[in-house]
Amino acid sequence: MRIEEDCVGKMEVPDKALYGIHALRAVGNFPITKELVHPKIIESYIEIKKAAAITNHGANTLDVTKCNAIIKACDQLLKSGDQSGFITPSIQGGAGTSTNMNTNEVIANLTMTLDSKVFIHPNDDVNQSQSTNDTYPTAGKMAMLKLIPNLLSELERLVATFTNLGQKFAKTIKLGRTQLQDAVPTTYGKSFHAYASLFKRDLKRIKHASAELKTISMGGTAIGTGMNASKYYQKHIVENINKCSKMSLKSDEDLIDAVQNTDHFVTFSAALKTLAVDLSKVSNDLRLLASGPQSGLDELRLPKRQAGSSIMPNKINPVIPEVVNQVAFEVIGFDATVTAASEAGQLELNAFEPIMFKSILTAEEHLTNATQTLVDNCLKDINVNDDKCSEDVKKSAVTATILSPILGYVKTTKIIQESLKKNESVKNILLNHNILDEQKIDELFSPENLVNESK
Amino acid sequence: MRIEEDCVGKMEVPDKALYGIHALRAVGNFPITKELVHPKIIESYIEIKKAAAITNHGANTLDVTKCNAIIKACDQLLKSGDQSGFITPSIQGGAGTSTNMNTNEVIANLTMTLDSKVFIHPNDDVNQSQSTNDTYPTAGKMAMLKLIPNLLSELERLVATFTNLGQKFAKTIKLGRTQLQDAVPTTYGKSFHAYASLFKRDLKRIKHASAELKTISMGGTAIGTGMNASKYYQKHIVENINKCSKMSLKSDEDLIDAVQNTDHFVTFSAALKTLAVDLSKVSNDLRLLASGPQSGLDELRLPKRQAGSSIMPNKINPVIPEVVNQVAFEVIGFDATVTAASEAGQLELNAFEPIMFKSILTAEEHLTNATQTLVDNCLKDINVNDDKCSEDVKKSAVTATILSPILGYVKTTKIIQESLKKNESVKNILLNHNILDEQKIDELFSPENLVNESK
Amino acid sequence: MRIEEDCVGKMEVPDKALYGIHALRAVGNFPITKELVHPKIIESYIEIKKAAAITNHGANTLDVTKCNAIIKACDQLLKSGDQSGFITPSIQGGAGTSTNMNTNEVIANLTMTLDSKVFIHPNDDVNQSQSTNDTYPTAGKMAMLKLIPNLLSELERLVATFTNLGQKFAKTIKLGRTQLQDAVPTTYGKSFHAYASLFKRDLKRIKHASAELKTISMGGTAIGTGMNASKYYQKHIVENINKCSKMSLKSDEDLIDAVQNTDHFVTFSAALKTLAVDLSKVSNDLRLLASGPQSGLDELRLPKRQAGSSIMPNKINPVIPEVVNQVAFEVIGFDATVTAASEAGQLELNAFEPIMFKSILTAEEHLTNATQTLVDNCLKDINVNDDKCSEDVKKSAVTATILSPILGYVKTTKIIQESLKKNESVKNILLNHNILDEQKIDELFSPENLVNESK
Amino acid sequence: MRIEEDCVGKMEVPDKALYGIHALRAVGNFPITKELVHPKIIESYIEIKKAAAITNHGANTLDVTKCNAIIKACDQLLKSGDQSGFITPSIQGGAGTSTNMNTNEVIANLTMTLDSKVFIHPNDDVNQSQSTNDTYPTAGKMAMLKLIPNLLSELERLVATFTNLGQKFAKTIKLGRTQLQDAVPTTYGKSFHAYASLFKRDLKRIKHASAELKTISMGGTAIGTGMNASKYYQKHIVENINKCSKMSLKSDEDLIDAVQNTDHFVTFSAALKTLAVDLSKVSNDLRLLASGPQSGLDELRLPKRQAGSSIMPNKINPVIPEVVNQVAFEVIGFDATVTAASEAGQLELNAFEPIMFKSILTAEEHLTNATQTLVDNCLKDINVNDDKCSEDVKKSAVTATILSPILGYVKTTKIIQESLKKNESVKNILLNHNILDEQKIDELFSPENLVNESK
Repeated sequence: MRIEEDCVGKMEVPDKALYGIHALRAVGNFPITKELVHPKIIESYIEIKKAAAITNHGANTLDVTKCNAIIKACDQLLKSGDQSGFITPSIQGGAGTSTNMNTNEVIANLTMTLDSKVFIHPNDDVNQSQSTNDTYPTAGKMAMLKLIPNLLSELERLVATFTNLGQKFAKTIKLGRTQLQDAVPTTYGKSFHAYASLFKRDLKRIKHASAELKTISMGGTAIGTGMNASKYYQKHIVENINKCSKMSLKSDEDLIDAVQNTDHFVTFSAALKTLAVDLSKVSNDLRLLASGPQSGLDELRLPKRQAGSSIMPNKINPVIPEVVNQVAFEVIGFDATVTAASEAGQLELNAFEPIMFKSILTAEEHLTNATQTLVDNCLKDINVNDDKCSEDVKKSAVTATILSPILGYVKTTKIIQESLKKNESVKNILLNHNILDEQKIDELFSPENLVNESK
Repeated sequence: MRIEEDCVGKMEVPDKALYGIHALRAVGNFPITKELVHPKIIESYIEIKKAAAITNHGANTLDVTKCNAIIKACDQLLKSGDQSGFITPSIQGGAGTSTNMNTNEVIANLTMTLDSKVFIHPNDDVNQSQSTNDTYPTAGKMAMLKLIPNLLSELERLVATFTNLGQKFAKTIKLGRTQLQDAVPTTYGKSFHAYASLFKRDLKRIKHASAELKTISMGGTAIGTGMNASKYYQKHIVENINKCSKMSLKSDEDLIDAVQNTDHFVTFSAALKTLAVDLSKVSNDLRLLASGPQSGLDELRLPKRQAGSSIMPNKINPVIPEVVNQVAFEVIGFDATVTAASEAGQLELNAFEPIMFKSILTAEEHLTNATQTLVDNCLKDINVNDDKCSEDVKKSAVTATILSPILGYVKTTKIIQESLKKNESVKNILLNHNILDEQKIDELFSPENLVNESK
Repeated sequence: MRIEEDCVGKMEVPDKALYGIHALRAVGNFPITKELVHPKIIESYIEIKKAAAITNHGANTLDVTKCNAIIKACDQLLKSGDQSGFITPSIQGGAGTSTNMNTNEVIANLTMTLDSKVFIHPNDDVNQSQSTNDTYPTAGKMAMLKLIPNLLSELERLVATFTNLGQKFAKTIKLGRTQLQDAVPTTYGKSFHAYASLFKRDLKRIKHASAELKTISMGGTAIGTGMNASKYYQKHIVENINKCSKMSLKSDEDLIDAVQNTDHFVTFSAALKTLAVDLSKVSNDLRLLASGPQSGLDELRLPKRQAGSSIMPNKINPVIPEVVNQVAFEVIGFDATVTAASEAGQLELNAFEPIMFKSILTAEEHLTNATQTLVDNCLKDINVNDDKCSEDVKKSAVTATILSPILGYVKTTKIIQESLKKNESVKNILLNHNILDEQKIDELFSPENLVNESK
Repeated sequence: MRIEEDCVGKMEVPDKALYGIHALRAVGNFPITKELVHPKIIESYIEIKKAAAITNHGANTLDVTKCNAIIKACDQLLKSGDQSGFITPSIQGGAGTSTNMNTNEVIANLTMTLDSKVFIHPNDDVNQSQSTNDTYPTAGKMAMLKLIPNLLSELERLVATFTNLGQKFAKTIKLGRTQLQDAVPTTYGKSFHAYASLFKRDLKRIKHASAELKTISMGGTAIGTGMNASKYYQKHIVENINKCSKMSLKSDEDLIDAVQNTDHFVTFSAALKTLAVDLSKVSNDLRLLASGPQSGLDELRLPKRQAGSSIMPNKINPVIPEVVNQVAFEVIGFDATVTAASEAGQLELNAFEPIMFKSILTAEEHLTNATQTLVDNCLKDINVNDDKCSEDVKKSAVTATILSPILGYVKTTKIIQESLKKNESVKNILLNHNILDEQKIDELFSPENLVNESK
């Protein structure tokens, strides 16, 4: 054990630990969850530290030896992906300071492991020109941005899959339903296309909301005034982070605002929640349309993924949409958490970013995974029960809506009522009463005309 | 116009207004909504003021003339129900002070209208021994309690209605569905009975949560220390409120706690939210089971309440459950509001009770009304489509689950698969393979046996 | 009383009523709230009906007499603003059909009042080529859009006010605080500017989200297939609505999607919620910075708006920020309602738009009003307690952070600790230990240098 | 690899795996999170399986050899705590079937490992008389109940700690604050006691809500009709579960209701949320009262737990209350998730229990841990800054409220205004104007009298 000291007092730290007293205190103080800070936050933090060393060297406030030592340590951590020195829990007090301190400690200690002649101070060197106030939200935003391509790519696959299904079933006529009651006919082509249209908007919204995340507060240091950061550093830190991370971030114009406000996270979380709501709506539809197999709507046939019951042999359930629904409910909850945490920010800082980051990063991952399993394990192999669909349209009295412009709303009502009461087709009622001739009826009630595609 | 003055300055007040400067300032400060403070809060506040006058007189801190004048004014307000002098909006800053001040003003001014020789001061006399800190949450709780009997009575009718339906349809066998897939049979008797059981618990929970509301902080005055209230007053105020209001409130043991904490409201709101969730679940079921009329489950027949479409003649929608769903979504939102407002309380007071009161009182009323229309306009005249229900059970392959203990899970699976594939009844499959004789099959598959009521 | 009939049966309607059987049934079916449908929805609906008549006439499906009669009735309703014939409640089942039907009835009946020779049928004529499925969400979106200019204009005033305050107090140095602990200095100029920056983003976001509302589903009729609408009508209806309403709406490319999905509302509600969160955060700050007057932070002096206590003389409370907080909590709840309602949509329609519309329209109005009172009754006349602010900075030990780059983190820690322990200024400690000379110290600790504006 | 088969088809399973095809399919179908089903659910499931074997043997539907083999396997799993065969993820579709199937598989396979001569079928034997419909909610409730004692014990420590602090600081007078403005005096004894009173109610509420969890649906099998369970089994299964688990569960009177409704979870989640709201309010208070050290309220001194800033030396933050706040925000989100999931239940089952269980179990654990760190790392060593507190009371003009009953509200207002304006003590103002003599003043303004404890 080695002894380390901070402004609180002394503490034993395991000899070979790359982390130090600050990280260790955090572990003791925050025994909420065993889940550690998200790896993408750590990775981003290391990129920030590397960029800061380069920039401080450029500003002549960090000598070349120290700069190189820090770069070397960062590169090794980034390359190996070894995050074993990072021990702070995902739910932590202190506004992220523990994670920043942990990063400073690991990098400083690693430089000395790599070259015993260099002395790097975690705060004076690794953390030079920085504060948790500016680095932590930056690392959080970078992590969120890094998870977005996977989410977008799954959403694109979702849109493509629904578009394909729309084409595949373009001619499959089916009864529309409003308020769960039989309505006028449509096609599965239109239905699947509508889902594609919906998720196209989600794609667009997530892209738009993520653009807000690209504006960062680096150079603001404590509370955004930039104390202890050189003008050179403030001018160049963002471009250096972009180089180290291959991202395209830009500096916020008002760093005081950027340090204290978390509306970007509320906005991004809301875009994720909207996607969740949409995924849930569509999953509800899929489950409902696939209900049966004998006593349900039985229009859709979802691929069989697993036995559905321990007691009812051969029961198959729509397990994939069900898991998507649950991710949606989870994300709705995450959004409530982010809302509460953001509202609780006070004065020059919001101390509750850790729980926002955990909520949003988990939401991104779970939505990505949910979309992936929805596409691969359900939609890709979905089928439509043509017979049931066309049968439903054929027997439907509500298709007589097509008569309304000709006969009027009141007379059409009577015809439908008679059809339902006598359990006789609308066509027969029309013929019986000599209202229209057969040719006209067949023309009106042709599937193409009913779904308004005859013209 | 008369001129009144407060610690801010002078202001014109309409000559005949019963309200005064404090209420008038509130109207100018809080132009959020035209909705005024709930009448039951006002009524309760008047009862509190009357009880306070009686108690202060008992404590010899208010002379008999003043006491009688205040009582007379309160009685007139309570009897007439005229609340035209109460002008403060339901959403207001100031932790309810405006409403309390308004009440003090109206009563003081009314006494002088009734008897020009008496001089009653709004604060020194009407508000004697009181603070908004103790009277406002008390008035809020009293108002909530006053709305409970109507809610409970509608819930009792709901339980009774479902119980009756359970008896009426006790023998109507139907297919159960889990995860929207066909499951083993049950009866509509059991289904309706289950709804009755559910709402019995809601009844119990709302009663239990409302008990918390009966504990009040009167006598605490500002922040709960009881400054400026006599010991006599503290001892007798609650019993006098009970006399004036015919309620059965009791004093909180820790008045400091009682003044600052709003967990009672969070708890009561949660009980209302749970009811909302349950009403929504059942409304969802009703709508789903009534789907059709031709291409849905078509098991339930809800009474027709109105034309369902401006374009589709004769379409009928489940409008009553739909409005219940919406009230449920509204109440889920109110609960989020109450949660946020309660969390925001600081130190010796929660300043955000006005929005909690508005949310909870509206939730109580809307849930009462939603339950009433559900019972009267939907459930009372609900009907079951026997033919469809028994047909579903007859053709169902999943009823073969009953064979599992005899043939085993694996073999039963094969039989069901064969039945579905060949579109042949399970009975025929069993007979074809000589697995069971007809008598045994009929015995096993008798409705009574399937719903486990044969023994 | 006159007798009217619908597909449910006959009903008495008051002789002179402009509404008819459909609206009257709704009143009986939905006794939830006395609040009627928002006037802007009604107004928009009338504009839609007028535009539809014009378009149907253009398509030769409505003769010129009928067309003119409908236009005349619509114009009279729009001009007078008399909505006494519109009786449907804001919370209603039936997906808005009652409101559409009510509009059809009022217009049809009014035409006949205006000219007894014309016969206009509510469905065949007024509702021609339309469904509630396309008109109701359109009217809802139009109403939301109509409320936006007021909201944006108040937000612009909010931004301008904070910008002005930022300039006015640009030189007022104050202590920053992170996690409620003393941090490095800043200025009230920067603080107010940061608030301006925050609300600029909200402005932008609300504008962006409102753009989504401009895409409408007119021409889709039932479920979006366009049944019973002519090609001419589909092509021209949106431009005619734009003419009648002076708006700039456009047609959705996928009408099936447009009819069934409500993600636009979730998105718009989320933008309002984000504004609410931001208003609440800033209101929290204002209340905290104005705490006192003697034993709080006492930095800000809010204008006195009303007496703050019925028992504590001369107490003044931050009532304006308090009412803003409450509106924020309310809007957070509305967003939960909209989320739940949107998720509940099924298949070709979301039946729960009425509660979404009520929630969003109320949110818009309350946020507008809250912002207005915040600007006019609080921010405009806000003042800063210069003495307290500069005193705080002078005595603050944490300003020694400025020494860190010179002395290092560890040594600076010791100096601050000594300063706090001995209750002696950092300057004295530095001089006592001969660490820095007085000129250097004064330079470092000059306000301009501390807030990083000296260069 | 061995080959297993289910109703979907064949699949390879690792030779030595205790799990089988059903669990393996779930892993593939639900790639949402790497977090597995909560260990307490698994443990409870094994206890259920053991109790079922005992009960089925008692009913003569399972022979003694099989019964003993199952008991032996269960005992070994329970004793070793080895859950390596349980591979289903915490977020899963299928209403828990995968977890039930996994349990059946592990037990069946383990029996055969332990004794190769026995053949135990996962469904026919281990799952005999059971369905996921009844076992899964039962296991979920058991798991929740098992986590409650730890939570209650931490809450008891919290109450005891606040009670002790209340006694320790009973005489420490301090200024109360309402709406963040100076109000009448109180003591820290009263303040801490009020917190103790608050959490006593939470303790009571959680106990009360947890009582609802003790009612289980065992014997209901699929959808609650009890198909394929013997009368003997139905009568004895609960007592046998109680024996195996040392719990005191009881059977629900309406098993149909018990299988389909999840209001118990909504209620329990709401009780946890209420605790979260209360913890957050108190944490907010602690952070505010400890603000400073130089330019805040500086009344409370929280123990120093870690360095608070990477850039500001010696800054110390209230990290423990901050982490408690964040857990509170997380739990508020979990409650939103549980609400959404419960509302989504349909007909005879709620398929979304997995996400409810995950949310509630995590909430219980995080609240337990948060309370523990609040007590041990913050409250236990909290201190009060006596000097600041008594100074605040001494200089406070609002204490003149005590004069109101003597001088009247209006005159007292003037005195306070003069005191604040002249920055002179209220005592001096009173003496200057000869309003009261010094002895009377000192009596009135004695701390004991101010906090209403003199009598």
